[in-house]
Amino acid sequence: MTSKHLEVNGYNPINMKAHVFVSLKKTVLDPQGKTIHSALKKMGYQDIADVRQGKFFEVTLREGLDKTAANAEVERIAREVLTNPVIEEFQYRIQD
Amino acid sequence: MTSKHLEVNGYNPINMKAHVFVSLKKTVLDPQGKTIHSALKKMGYQDIADVRQGKFFEVTLREGLDKTAANAEVERIAREVLTNPVIEEFQYRIQD
Repeated sequence: MTSKHLEVNGYNPINMKAHVFVSLKKTVLDPQGKTIHSALKKMGYQDIADVRQGKFFEVTLREGLDKTAANAEVERIAREVLTNPVIEEFQYRIQD
Repeated sequence: MTSKHLEVNGYNPINMKAHVFVSLKKTVLDPQGKTIHSALKKMGYQDIADVRQGKFFEVTLREGLDKTAANAEVERIAREVLTNPVIEEFQYRIQD
């Protein structure tokens, strides 16, 4: 990804965004996804084999934060606040 | 993206997956995101400027569906079933 803004000594004048995706672990039943899947089948969408639902969070970071700090902060929030580690797993992506 | 499986005449022996992301339009208030944001601030995470929450769906397509058909099916489902066009917008991505 190329940066379209000026960056001076690592200072980032534009708010970075991060996307955090939280989904149920593969081994955990997803009744909401199953409901959507059976509704789709009844509506005539026959090409779907399975549906699982998850959550995502668009996190805007404060201006001036560098990418390393952003990574650390977002991972910590995803792990400690947004995800229930017993039944969920997360992925995240920083973009600027 | 490179395909790691054999594909004969467009027949895809592996179930493709699609990810559909549904989020509130930028102009629509997101009280749930605001709540998460203020909770994070109270917990000491000071580098966050904003949080918005959305949903995502992992859709597994039936075996043998080609990519063009998959694209059409997933876009139709995202537009007509998973998204409320008044307040939400969607993005999707097919991966195999």
